Amino acid sequence: MIAEYKTKQKRLQGRLREMCADGALITSNVNLFYFTGRIVNGYLYIPAEGNSVLFVRAPLGIEGEGIIYFNNPKKLPEAMAAQGFSLPNRLMLEDGDITANEYLRLQAVFSGCEIIGGSQAIRELRSIKTPREIELFRQTAQVHAQAYRKIPEIYRKGMTDREFSCAIEYELRKLGHLGLFRTYGFRMEAFMGSVLAGENANEPSPFDFALGGKGEDSSLPVGACGKPLEEGTTVMVDLSNNLFGYITDMSRTYAIGELPDKAYRAHEVSLKIQEEIVRAGKAGTVCSELYALALNIARESGFGDCFMGQKQQAKFVGHGIGIEINELPVLAPRMNTVLQENMVIALEPKFIVEGVGAVGTENSYVVTGAGLEKITVFGEEIVRLD
Amino acid sequence: MIAEYKTKQKRLQGRLREMCADGALITSNVNLFYFTGRIVNGYLYIPAEGNSVLFVRAPLGIEGEGIIYFNNPKKLPEAMAAQGFSLPNRLMLEDGDITANEYLRLQAVFSGCEIIGGSQAIRELRSIKTPREIELFRQTAQVHAQAYRKIPEIYRKGMTDREFSCAIEYELRKLGHLGLFRTYGFRMEAFMGSVLAGENANEPSPFDFALGGKGEDSSLPVGACGKPLEEGTTVMVDLSNNLFGYITDMSRTYAIGELPDKAYRAHEVSLKIQEEIVRAGKAGTVCSELYALALNIARESGFGDCFMGQKQQAKFVGHGIGIEINELPVLAPRMNTVLQENMVIALEPKFIVEGVGAVGTENSYVVTGAGLEKITVFGEEIVRLD
Repeated sequence: MIAEYKTKQKRLQGRLREMCADGALITSNVNLFYFTGRIVNGYLYIPAEGNSVLFVRAPLGIEGEGIIYFNNPKKLPEAMAAQGFSLPNRLMLEDGDITANEYLRLQAVFSGCEIIGGSQAIRELRSIKTPREIELFRQTAQVHAQAYRKIPEIYRKGMTDREFSCAIEYELRKLGHLGLFRTYGFRMEAFMGSVLAGENANEPSPFDFALGGKGEDSSLPVGACGKPLEEGTTVMVDLSNNLFGYITDMSRTYAIGELPDKAYRAHEVSLKIQEEIVRAGKAGTVCSELYALALNIARESGFGDCFMGQKQQAKFVGHGIGIEINELPVLAPRMNTVLQENMVIALEPKFIVEGVGAVGTENSYVVTGAGLEKITVFGEEIVRLD
Repeated sequence: MIAEYKTKQKRLQGRLREMCADGALITSNVNLFYFTGRIVNGYLYIPAEGNSVLFVRAPLGIEGEGIIYFNNPKKLPEAMAAQGFSLPNRLMLEDGDITANEYLRLQAVFSGCEIIGGSQAIRELRSIKTPREIELFRQTAQVHAQAYRKIPEIYRKGMTDREFSCAIEYELRKLGHLGLFRTYGFRMEAFMGSVLAGENANEPSPFDFALGGKGEDSSLPVGACGKPLEEGTTVMVDLSNNLFGYITDMSRTYAIGELPDKAYRAHEVSLKIQEEIVRAGKAGTVCSELYALALNIARESGFGDCFMGQKQQAKFVGHGIGIEINELPVLAPRMNTVLQENMVIALEPKFIVEGVGAVGTENSYVVTGAGLEKITVFGEEIVRLD
């Protein structure tokens, strides 16, 4: 097993011992990928001490140390015993990553064991990225910027927001985007992100995105809604990039023709908030303080009532990114989590300017001891499309 | 509430009474959309008798009969009482659609109630489509065919499989595909489907798709792998379409130049299997019998060992489609489910021809009293690309 996964598993083992658990049974795609670099139909057992074993049902043909084929999940305890594991007294399951019926099935299979939920602990571990993960983020962010560079030439007068969105997505896809947009939990869905034009940026969404959008159909109430891009409005492009399983998040604002002054002023406030958070934030900073800082600047500038939405305001200004778009930490009120070195976060102070649309930017940053290092390096002014 | 949702809710109420449950609490996006036509952050309570209420946290601004705003999921029982509901003795939750932690949270909130899993029952209801759903499927299938019609002009000599895939996806997106590809459970993931070229079609996948493909990155081990399309091999295009939340499934095979005879013979067997299943299948037919029929034809034709894969063989020949790609019923061994009128299913007898790639077709059908009606009407021969 390469050092990357050994390190990650060792960190979980430390948490298991702190939580007095004897082992963790990992079966979600996201956490299997995190801890082993592979996605299988199967179960990874990480004991609190010693080596893990990956019990695989599919695909056939995987070889490697610590990989065992098995067929019947009901006989997992026997399969584990055959590998020399004793039955855990206290077993960690991924309560936030798997469905209830899978959890209940495993609870029945390990009926002698006390079951504890582990998703929160695993998300905390995942929030601190490894050097290799940070390198993948850097590459992904560069390609993200490369795709956005094409946006002015993609634009055609009279396009609808969905046409514009599809064309930018296609640019991202051609440059290597895997397409997949993973979210934690079962409530949030989106395609590759969102492109929010004019008034649609102010449409409340059921999902916890910064801004929502009505969407094209009630079966996916988020993002572009199919209306033509109109003179005097903005388009906020908030699409993801995902080349290697790690999602970068980056928003830029475009103007269709001339915008009122107010839009430019609100945009400047967004840039100022990013600047001030970058100045204040580093390993050790409390997340809620950065949210409060952002909200204060928004209010002092007279844009408090349209900060992070106007009809419906999102109560955060940033979030961790990783294999999922909504990782830890969250920069929100009452979040007393402290920024730690090698966290990767997105900051997205955004405003709604009534009658115009959304303004602001979003960038992805690596938290270092000295501060926040921007990895989505790309022009941040409002770009006029003609 | 429009008649469509009234009907669906009434059918669930019948099941609730059969299961001696007093109500169901629905909170997954898929089932909220199914039962109400909307996706919200909230809970739909459907009592065994009487009218349902949708308790909404977000988005703000929804109006309508039976819609109540509330804030605190812990106080759901109180919110329900305020609407005149008595506390259920036996409460149905969506055990297969929500995460374990949400299920456990609700179990704690309704600590006085016996909780039963309802996802299987709901999936059974959802497997029988309404006339409106079938109409949406028909429109989606037509556009699906319209996009595939462009495939020969999309092809360029020297393209990689991923370039080909991205370009066809873009065609689908431009024609209205929402992009989203929903699956039941937490194990299966894909972008908009798969494009499988040459030997890559034979790569085992961890997911329960008919054929897998290696994928481009270990974080998404399915579909195209980035290799150039080669002379003398096939490309199977198996992309979804989803215009209104209902996914159609359709595969077609393309030849890059000249193929060996064996590929054409295996393809003919695939067409014959579809034909024979259509002849045998109608409301009342047992699903496992249709699988056995398919397997027999494959074996008698000498293609049994490469039916539904060769290195790893999928053990089904068809599946229900709907809001999710893997709905009920499944045409597989031991599936004694009976086809019922207005089920919508995909049939996908496919073969791997070694050294060449995948052949076969996949079509979506509506089950009627008289038989199976194909809705993905489009040429089924192997189309040569030059």
